[in-house]
Amino acid sequence: MKARVTIMLKDGVLDPQGEAIRHALAGLGHKGVDGVRQGKVIELDLTATDADAARTEVTRMCETLLANTVIEKYAVEIL
Amino acid sequence: MKARVTIMLKDGVLDPQGEAIRHALAGLGHKGVDGVRQGKVIELDLTATDADAARTEVTRMCETLLANTVIEKYAVEIL
Repeated sequence: MKARVTIMLKDGVLDPQGEAIRHALAGLGHKGVDGVRQGKVIELDLTATDADAARTEVTRMCETLLANTVIEKYAVEIL
Repeated sequence: MKARVTIMLKDGVLDPQGEAIRHALAGLGHKGVDGVRQGKVIELDLTATDADAARTEVTRMCETLLANTVIEKYAVEIL
């Protein structure tokens, strides 16, 4: 079973990497970009076969290791 | 209009960051993880109102700046 975790900075947390991308895109002539946020995506191959159990396990991974929940939000998808 | 670009290393390209995460998860007792791949997600706020035009523009951004198409693959979603 596969799971995908998407981790983004929380709204309101400054994202200098996203801002750098916005600036670079403007420099290349892409004018229609109002804002950019960059985050991480982590794809996991799991041995679990039960979707609910997998979601619980991946959520625990996010809370303990994958995300810094002070400044980041995460979303778990089971694929 | 919002767009989300997901950028992952192509299959077969070594992903040491993903491997480090897998190792750390195993160390924390998460045994049921066979493999981990890490990538980037970029969320764009666009002024475009036409979905097809937005998709074309974002694809062009990926080809010119956002992704290294030699080693990375990307997917564009219009939200």
